[in-house]
Amino acid sequence: MQCLIAWPDCPKPGRKLHQKDFLLSTRSMASKTPVGFVGLGNMGSPMAKNLLKNGYPVIATDVFPESCKELQDIGAQVVDTPGEVAEKADRILTMLPSSPNVIEVYTGPNGILKKVKKGTLLIDSSTIDPAVSREMAAAAEKMGAVFMDAPVSGGVGAASLAKLTFMVGGVEEEYNAAQELLTCMGANVVYCGPVGTGQAAKICNNMLLAIGMIGTAETMNLGIRLGLDPKLLAKILNMSSGRCWSSDTYNPAPGVMEGVPSANNYQGGFGTTLMAKDLGLAQNTATNTKTPIPLGSLAHQIFRVMCSRGYANKDFSSVFQFLREEEGQ
Amino acid sequence: MQCLIAWPDCPKPGRKLHQKDFLLSTRSMASKTPVGFVGLGNMGSPMAKNLLKNGYPVIATDVFPESCKELQDIGAQVVDTPGEVAEKADRILTMLPSSPNVIEVYTGPNGILKKVKKGTLLIDSSTIDPAVSREMAAAAEKMGAVFMDAPVSGGVGAASLAKLTFMVGGVEEEYNAAQELLTCMGANVVYCGPVGTGQAAKICNNMLLAIGMIGTAETMNLGIRLGLDPKLLAKILNMSSGRCWSSDTYNPAPGVMEGVPSANNYQGGFGTTLMAKDLGLAQNTATNTKTPIPLGSLAHQIFRVMCSRGYANKDFSSVFQFLREEEGQ
Amino acid sequence: MQCLIAWPDCPKPGRKLHQKDFLLSTRSMASKTPVGFVGLGNMGSPMAKNLLKNGYPVIATDVFPESCKELQDIGAQVVDTPGEVAEKADRILTMLPSSPNVIEVYTGPNGILKKVKKGTLLIDSSTIDPAVSREMAAAAEKMGAVFMDAPVSGGVGAASLAKLTFMVGGVEEEYNAAQELLTCMGANVVYCGPVGTGQAAKICNNMLLAIGMIGTAETMNLGIRLGLDPKLLAKILNMSSGRCWSSDTYNPAPGVMEGVPSANNYQGGFGTTLMAKDLGLAQNTATNTKTPIPLGSLAHQIFRVMCSRGYANKDFSSVFQFLREEEGQ
Amino acid sequence: MQCLIAWPDCPKPGRKLHQKDFLLSTRSMASKTPVGFVGLGNMGSPMAKNLLKNGYPVIATDVFPESCKELQDIGAQVVDTPGEVAEKADRILTMLPSSPNVIEVYTGPNGILKKVKKGTLLIDSSTIDPAVSREMAAAAEKMGAVFMDAPVSGGVGAASLAKLTFMVGGVEEEYNAAQELLTCMGANVVYCGPVGTGQAAKICNNMLLAIGMIGTAETMNLGIRLGLDPKLLAKILNMSSGRCWSSDTYNPAPGVMEGVPSANNYQGGFGTTLMAKDLGLAQNTATNTKTPIPLGSLAHQIFRVMCSRGYANKDFSSVFQFLREEEGQ
Repeated sequence: MQCLIAWPDCPKPGRKLHQKDFLLSTRSMASKTPVGFVGLGNMGSPMAKNLLKNGYPVIATDVFPESCKELQDIGAQVVDTPGEVAEKADRILTMLPSSPNVIEVYTGPNGILKKVKKGTLLIDSSTIDPAVSREMAAAAEKMGAVFMDAPVSGGVGAASLAKLTFMVGGVEEEYNAAQELLTCMGANVVYCGPVGTGQAAKICNNMLLAIGMIGTAETMNLGIRLGLDPKLLAKILNMSSGRCWSSDTYNPAPGVMEGVPSANNYQGGFGTTLMAKDLGLAQNTATNTKTPIPLGSLAHQIFRVMCSRGYANKDFSSVFQFLREEEGQ
Repeated sequence: MQCLIAWPDCPKPGRKLHQKDFLLSTRSMASKTPVGFVGLGNMGSPMAKNLLKNGYPVIATDVFPESCKELQDIGAQVVDTPGEVAEKADRILTMLPSSPNVIEVYTGPNGILKKVKKGTLLIDSSTIDPAVSREMAAAAEKMGAVFMDAPVSGGVGAASLAKLTFMVGGVEEEYNAAQELLTCMGANVVYCGPVGTGQAAKICNNMLLAIGMIGTAETMNLGIRLGLDPKLLAKILNMSSGRCWSSDTYNPAPGVMEGVPSANNYQGGFGTTLMAKDLGLAQNTATNTKTPIPLGSLAHQIFRVMCSRGYANKDFSSVFQFLREEEGQ
Repeated sequence: MQCLIAWPDCPKPGRKLHQKDFLLSTRSMASKTPVGFVGLGNMGSPMAKNLLKNGYPVIATDVFPESCKELQDIGAQVVDTPGEVAEKADRILTMLPSSPNVIEVYTGPNGILKKVKKGTLLIDSSTIDPAVSREMAAAAEKMGAVFMDAPVSGGVGAASLAKLTFMVGGVEEEYNAAQELLTCMGANVVYCGPVGTGQAAKICNNMLLAIGMIGTAETMNLGIRLGLDPKLLAKILNMSSGRCWSSDTYNPAPGVMEGVPSANNYQGGFGTTLMAKDLGLAQNTATNTKTPIPLGSLAHQIFRVMCSRGYANKDFSSVFQFLREEEGQ
Repeated sequence: MQCLIAWPDCPKPGRKLHQKDFLLSTRSMASKTPVGFVGLGNMGSPMAKNLLKNGYPVIATDVFPESCKELQDIGAQVVDTPGEVAEKADRILTMLPSSPNVIEVYTGPNGILKKVKKGTLLIDSSTIDPAVSREMAAAAEKMGAVFMDAPVSGGVGAASLAKLTFMVGGVEEEYNAAQELLTCMGANVVYCGPVGTGQAAKICNNMLLAIGMIGTAETMNLGIRLGLDPKLLAKILNMSSGRCWSSDTYNPAPGVMEGVPSANNYQGGFGTTLMAKDLGLAQNTATNTKTPIPLGSLAHQIFRVMCSRGYANKDFSSVFQFLREEEGQ
């Protein structure tokens, strides 16, 4: 089953792309109008490359000149500000680290909305608070533009291979236009509802993932201490009602599965810091909508403590190790 | 996939059994030695009937005379005490509500171990603390008998239909002998390891189930409040890393699935009280082995509060309702 | 010991104030420059009255005309917008329900900062996110004005009696000027540090209060179920290391103390909704500063669930009742 | 205020006691009947010495011969088994590590109850599950003896100085007889109610203490990260409703108070392991009485994780350090 989260053993992105890879596609550029791209980080850069590869002229910008240079070398036109991108393109993607960046890029003094043309399609793939997505959509609407949120699941590898999953929120009539671009960069594009629901879907999935992972870690640890063989316990859970993605696909107890972070000292995978960030969004969103999330909230606290106790850069399944009594104690 | 937990829409146990149902089997009784059965409650009674149906002479006892009478009417021999059962049978099953009952039935003044014959096979299907199972095994060993724990998954319906799942802990050499009897009463028999590991497996599964259920309820509720359609959200979770048994097989949000308790005002299914009892065992076991179970422990507290707030007899998926703001507030 | 939280049995605010009450003070008005006041709700209205009573001319505004009318009747000058207040007064207090209101009143199109005079002292007594206080302070500084946060402890009764406690954050040099006004409305004024620390102090205190209250409720309930007399248990805790404000001053178990909400079916006091709001601020603040607050976070979730289960308007010590098994179960 | 918990800076127990210290008291022994003492560990040994010092002949036993030797040297009569103690004394104190030891010493093959004389007063100062205390009381009653539970607060220092606090449960008519002995070893003796309530009081106090300590640690950490000075924050809390023993007497943030473990790298004081043990008793007791303790339960899990993460032997206030992000991260 296709899984929306970064998968550590997915095929490597392969050799570095060179300009010649884009020869064929640039030939067909004449028939495609340019696409703007703001935010050329670890995720944005391979996403923009996949647009180029699919024959779209790309007008790009980023605060780091090196990121721009790399994309320029393979055919993108680089400009100085998000506002200039908006002058030259009527379809724009943004991929930014967090809410304040999104607010700046859209509504700041050199922002997209200062120069946006009527009818422009704006797609934000950042993972942010859905309330900010809705604010941006309202601001865009005032300028006659359309804003959609389209956060992704899948890590850098999936971005390079155009295997991302996009969860899209926004006006349904514009979904087809968005889908045309997103399918160049992803394997799954799911329409979720009005603006903000793409973010909501991602936040919800990752919260339940976090709960399932800690729950599986606790359960595997308890079972082992009660004398059960870890592989047998996993097998029993997976044929029973305890089954979940963390038990059957990404088991956190070393020795149960191969090709997962727990088989590799919790290297790679989905870092505890990133999970803590997503749970922070879930927490804020729940607080602001007055929704009780007792387990989600405790999961957030646990990953937050782990970040302070040396697990920040390990895969989030290292919670198994965090909870486990050390050998010899 | 076969699921170990009581399933509310499973086929009804069918018509009441009468003596003639057992004619064929009683004819073959000559070739089978008697099996003892202590504890003829909601679960024990249909289990004992399935032994009779399979041709085993049954020597039974229970503290409630009515329960004995019913079994006597269809061919069982009824005696007064567990000790007497032990005098007449060298394979004995016990199915009792909780640890103190098990201790009494085995080691009490009229208990099995007062009269047990050397070599007797004792199988306890009660759900209790694995530490008590180990104590009983040690006490049995002193008398030259063999004790195994074999708690079940599946409710009264599964017991009647001989569709239970048994998780068996005990000496491996005796497993075949136990399996012969247990397959008369269940569809799955899983060997888990030394004495107590059957209990451990059941406790572990139900703890992870409880965590997954509350997590799913929180997630569905949060998503709905963020504007997602419940069916769509469930679909997204189930194709993603948030997937778990509670999201894809027993979804707690009304309107997402049919044939589950959430579609029927949380009637039937697996009661909150029973889940709270199993989580109490998980909690005690974890405390006594010094194992941290932060989410398991919080899940326990949540179901415990629910028992006090009017959800005791509803299906445990009613945690969705418990967490949800009431209409009109 | 003076306590910062609303105290249910504090002396009633007494008879309604009439214009003659202000005769003496208005006579001395000539020597005092006007003070602006924005937000004449349950708390703001008695606070503004105390300024009048102390001889300060008050320039007031509120979105509800009735609130303005009442204050006008006793001598305040009413204007239409926060901006107009800022034109007429160089010391302004604001008392608003939440962050968005504060942002609107300060930075909105008719906001204070649109018309503020250089050197104006702005004091915000709303309880909001300290990050918003810092934003307002930065925006005020650009206009040459000074912003301080000064949230209060104490309810409507304390506001009427000028017995509030103010926790003040802001530039230390301006503290004396702020203190002069705040002492007209409160019994304690505590300087906490730079802008935002007043909010921080209030949030911290209320988070620890919430934890102590739930902890006391759990402890009293457990002790009672273990056979202890509630009064005796409270006495033992209060002479021991379990002692806290919730055990010795505001005990949540009925029958232990008089004059507290638990003695009056949890009427009056500090509502569960308000506590949930303050814990939401603590939660957001902790999330945004990446600070783990496991118990604070769980306390938040518990009060949030209580709001949905019918305890919204009861005193927050009703958590004792929420956790308790009902009679007859 | 006298505090029931071990206090790290209490006066040292002073010079080692020698036989001559007991000369005066032994002279008066003729008029006092012997007292039995079982369990001469870190706590039991100084307690037994205080009985000797007060002129009571002591009949003692312990599984470790060295412990017996030390007491023998200063005048106690040493015997081999608890049963022999019961033959020679009609007032017996026991001070043992945990429930299984208590069960063995009272009901084992060489146990007290095998030889106890009618009318003997049995006082158990171990900290154990109150249900075990009740079982022992019932077993004693069958033999015509009286059992009381009298767990202590205060550590080894308080035991040496006869400054312990005893929380006593048992038949009220026997309380005076118990008090006569206990006042030789403690400064406070509190009657709590029927058998088991002494344990209940201790468990309840320590649970609330644990909650208050973690809550204080979270609050101090959050406040510091929000820019508050730790000493000022403590002062504000202590004059407000956040006040508790952990904030005003044993503050966990370094630099706030002197003479507490937080001022000494969390050395000394009350170890995390011991707190986790007491919370385990609270947890088991709550589970067995079906009492929800959400915060108590989470506090238990946090101290349990700390034990596995290197905090086992630090004072329990080191939870402040556990939750805090390390410098430089």
